[in-house]
Amino acid sequence: MAEKAFQDYYREEYSHCYGCGRLNDHGLQIKSYWDGDETVTTFTPKAYHIAIPGYVYGGLIASLIDCHSTGSAAAAAYRAEGRSMDSEPPLRFLTAALHVDYVRPTPLGVALEIRSQIKEIKDRKVIVSSELYAEGEVCARGEVVAVRVPEHLLPSES
Amino acid sequence: MAEKAFQDYYREEYSHCYGCGRLNDHGLQIKSYWDGDETVTTFTPKAYHIAIPGYVYGGLIASLIDCHSTGSAAAAAYRAEGRSMDSEPPLRFLTAALHVDYVRPTPLGVALEIRSQIKEIKDRKVIVSSELYAEGEVCARGEVVAVRVPEHLLPSES
Repeated sequence: MAEKAFQDYYREEYSHCYGCGRLNDHGLQIKSYWDGDETVTTFTPKAYHIAIPGYVYGGLIASLIDCHSTGSAAAAAYRAEGRSMDSEPPLRFLTAALHVDYVRPTPLGVALEIRSQIKEIKDRKVIVSSELYAEGEVCARGEVVAVRVPEHLLPSES
Repeated sequence: MAEKAFQDYYREEYSHCYGCGRLNDHGLQIKSYWDGDETVTTFTPKAYHIAIPGYVYGGLIASLIDCHSTGSAAAAAYRAEGRSMDSEPPLRFLTAALHVDYVRPTPLGVALEIRSQIKEIKDRKVIVSSELYAEGEVCARGEVVAVRVPEHLLPSES
C-alpha cells in the first residue's frame, strides 16, 4: 500500500514500542492501515515465533492484536475529530484490557492478516475488535480496550 | 531455586516455544516453579521490551502470562494425577483464551514476578489466574484457559 501507516505518524518519542515502534530494531515494527471502516495489518512470523512445531506462538498473536489495536484506536480517534494523524495534539493509546480467543492453531510460515473494527469510541476509550487470518481462515479473535495515554505518562515535548 | 522448572521437563520436541522453550535462542525462556499451591516465575524485561518510555510492552506481559499459565496448567495436571512431570504420557497445554487487565503501567528496568493460582482443573481444561508484580505492586492480572494439546498436533514420539 502506498499510504503512510498509522505508526509512521507517531512522534519519535513514541516510536520505540517493541510491537510497533519504527525505531525499535529488536521489535516487530508492525504497520497498520485503514481499509474502508476496517483497519488491517499483515505480519509474517519468523521461524523462531514457534509454539509447538508448525504453529505460531500465541504470545506473538496477542502482541500483534495488542499493537494493531492501539494503533487503530489512535487512528479512529483522529478520524472522529476529523483531523489527520500528524496534527496536534497527538493522540496515543495504551491497552487497558486484552482478550484473545485462539480459535484454531495458527500455521507458521505464512503471512498473517489482522482485520479490525472500531466497536466503540467514547471520551478517552476505544474498543477494537479483531480477527486474525492465516490462509483465509480465522485463527484468532481479539478484543482490546484502549485508553488514551494520560498526560503525566507522556514524554516531554521534543 | 534449586528445583527443576516445569519447562525443563518438556521433551525436546516441545522445547522450541518462543515463550518458554529452553531450545529457542531468540525466545524468552521463562522458568516456572511451584510455591505451595501457587506457581511463580520471574522475568526481567530487556531495554527493548519498551512500550512508551519507562514502561514495559503490554504484549510481553501477555506473553509471559500466557506461557507461565500453560506451564502451570501442565504442572497442575501432573499433580492432579499424582505423578511427576517426567512420567509418561506427557501432558502439554495450549492457550484457548487469554485475558489480561493492565492495572497500571509496568515499570521497565526491574524484575517482574508472576504468581498464579489454579482456578479449575477438569478433563482436558485448566483455568489459571495470575497477578504480575513489579516492585511489590500488582501491574496486571491475567486469566488463561488452557487445553490439552490434541494428539494430532503433537510431534511424533522421539
